[in-house]
Amino acid sequence: MGKFGFEVLHKDAGTGARRGVLHTPHGDIPTPVFMPVGTGGAVKAMPGDFLKSLDARVILANTYHLYLRPGHERVQKLGGLHGFMSWDKAILTDSGGYQVFSHRGLRDISEDGVQFKSHLDGSKNFFTPEKAIDVQRALGSDIVMVFDDCTPYPAGLVDAEASMELSMRWAQRCKNQWAKEEDGSRGLFGIVQGSVYPDLRKRSAEALLEIGFSGMAIGGLSVGEPKDLMYEIVESTAPLLPWDQPRYLMGVGTPEDLVRNIAMGIDMFDCVLPTRNARNGCLFTSQGRILIKNAIYAEDDGPLDPNCSCRTCQLYSRAYLRHLFLSGEHLSAVYNTLHNLTFYLDMMRKIRQAIDLDFFGNWLELMKKGVD
Amino acid sequence: MGKFGFEVLHKDAGTGARRGVLHTPHGDIPTPVFMPVGTGGAVKAMPGDFLKSLDARVILANTYHLYLRPGHERVQKLGGLHGFMSWDKAILTDSGGYQVFSHRGLRDISEDGVQFKSHLDGSKNFFTPEKAIDVQRALGSDIVMVFDDCTPYPAGLVDAEASMELSMRWAQRCKNQWAKEEDGSRGLFGIVQGSVYPDLRKRSAEALLEIGFSGMAIGGLSVGEPKDLMYEIVESTAPLLPWDQPRYLMGVGTPEDLVRNIAMGIDMFDCVLPTRNARNGCLFTSQGRILIKNAIYAEDDGPLDPNCSCRTCQLYSRAYLRHLFLSGEHLSAVYNTLHNLTFYLDMMRKIRQAIDLDFFGNWLELMKKGVD
Repeated sequence: MGKFGFEVLHKDAGTGARRGVLHTPHGDIPTPVFMPVGTGGAVKAMPGDFLKSLDARVILANTYHLYLRPGHERVQKLGGLHGFMSWDKAILTDSGGYQVFSHRGLRDISEDGVQFKSHLDGSKNFFTPEKAIDVQRALGSDIVMVFDDCTPYPAGLVDAEASMELSMRWAQRCKNQWAKEEDGSRGLFGIVQGSVYPDLRKRSAEALLEIGFSGMAIGGLSVGEPKDLMYEIVESTAPLLPWDQPRYLMGVGTPEDLVRNIAMGIDMFDCVLPTRNARNGCLFTSQGRILIKNAIYAEDDGPLDPNCSCRTCQLYSRAYLRHLFLSGEHLSAVYNTLHNLTFYLDMMRKIRQAIDLDFFGNWLELMKKGVD
Repeated sequence: MGKFGFEVLHKDAGTGARRGVLHTPHGDIPTPVFMPVGTGGAVKAMPGDFLKSLDARVILANTYHLYLRPGHERVQKLGGLHGFMSWDKAILTDSGGYQVFSHRGLRDISEDGVQFKSHLDGSKNFFTPEKAIDVQRALGSDIVMVFDDCTPYPAGLVDAEASMELSMRWAQRCKNQWAKEEDGSRGLFGIVQGSVYPDLRKRSAEALLEIGFSGMAIGGLSVGEPKDLMYEIVESTAPLLPWDQPRYLMGVGTPEDLVRNIAMGIDMFDCVLPTRNARNGCLFTSQGRILIKNAIYAEDDGPLDPNCSCRTCQLYSRAYLRHLFLSGEHLSAVYNTLHNLTFYLDMMRKIRQAIDLDFFGNWLELMKKGVD
């Protein structure tokens, strides 16, 4: 098995954007990349064959969900997550930190780890940094994330500092656990925390650099803070991260978010937006967003997006997609998800090409003018 | 456009089974055939590309549902049902009679037609035989069914006779309406009624023969009567139907039902069973039915059916399919439906081959021994 690694292939002339490639045991991933979210071992409403037809190279799966159901040991017995879900490209797993964070009131944090109640059956579970690593190993993840304490927004400086420092101690424990079986084929990523305080972010990045990881993520953003604040934090944090490692902005975001953060040197993204919006009938197109339930589409026999080559746009009209949505058909979710993921992955392909050709700056200008 | 028509190509040596071909404006259909049900302009949870990959040649759509939503006039504007749902193979539409029947309490039957309340919004609608034809024409159906009064089970002889006679008068009105624009390219099917009374069935068949149709259906079965009674009625009714016309047993059934009725000379079937069961996690396999939620499949890494070539069986284990079902994933419905429809359509392919080779009798014996 080859070595896990990252190469920057080209830096855009006019922005901070980078073209790169991430080498994983399950194939190379051209960056910048958007990772579709496959929460419980399935990208929702997206048949595997459809996902492969989009040339998706990596998906994200949620450790928290798979730990609770069907259980990481069961997944391991069934061939790891790749075998279980019949997916032979790369998989990044989050550590569960964010899910524990988003179930506030059901959790209890201590130095050792987090006790939380299952959202499925109320059962009590205890997660530690060591366990988060073990579970992700059992899942067979190609890219493993450290277990962190995702600081809520807003947080005062004192709380944000304490939370960040706890995350850094946990990051060290994750690294120690990881090092026990490390063979260099898979990646472990650190996660920068520190809320909206540039100084905390800087200290967090420095702490992670000292521990040493194969990639760096920026966490704790897109949790309710104003957009401009998110951009400011990324702008000040990205340059602190190693040039020769992938930079992953977690849980972000809209097409505009992607473009603007890529311009600041971010390489990897994940977000439920394209898939969740699809199920809610909110569709991304080259001409803006469409709410497919709107009456104006009732007799619109045109494709969702005349500039899209996905099967949904090839085969079905807006009127038909509206009908499926209003009828509550499973196929509504399927066709809409196919389209939205095509939109995202096609956009990323075009962005990579734009960076290669040194005209990504034009994209950025267009986005700033409000085209999404 | 070619002429609508049917040819019997071969009669099985040992049973009443027939191999035939039905010519429609949207392609030839080898018979015996099972028609997947696409209620509201979509075979539930079955992407069009998947359906085409199974070589499905005809689907059934429900006039009642499409009339209420999105409306037949709207469908007509959007290219008819073929254009609307992007389906270029044949479509048979029921007349709405069965749906009106199954909404008992919301309907009021008179000589002229049926007043019924929409199950969607409670609005009052009035359906007549003439309207049923007009609506199906607007949908662009290849095979149009007469509007009938589906007799409930059980029904006394007097009620059953009155209901059958009403259906026959309506059948004549359907034919009259049909004849106004008939060009011979599409088919109009009569429906034999008469509940479980062979004499009424005989009189109904004779009345329909007198009116003249391009195909004959047996309706009013599989509505709660014992199985044996259904078989008896088919056995006595099928021989009354013209040899050179397709015979369609409506709303039937299980794999065993199909085999046994084919042996009595039935050519066409439709049923929600494979698609609805799929969504409920009940799967047909060469080794019997599987309830995928059962705990015994939790760590079963084998395919649903080792003798099935569908993508579900190629790619996914029983354990994974169980996980998707328990997680409420849309993909559970998609993969299960793909499998169940593959099972049905593959079975029909094998049956057609068996008839061609004069060994369909063996199939029948196996079925009678309880293998489904």
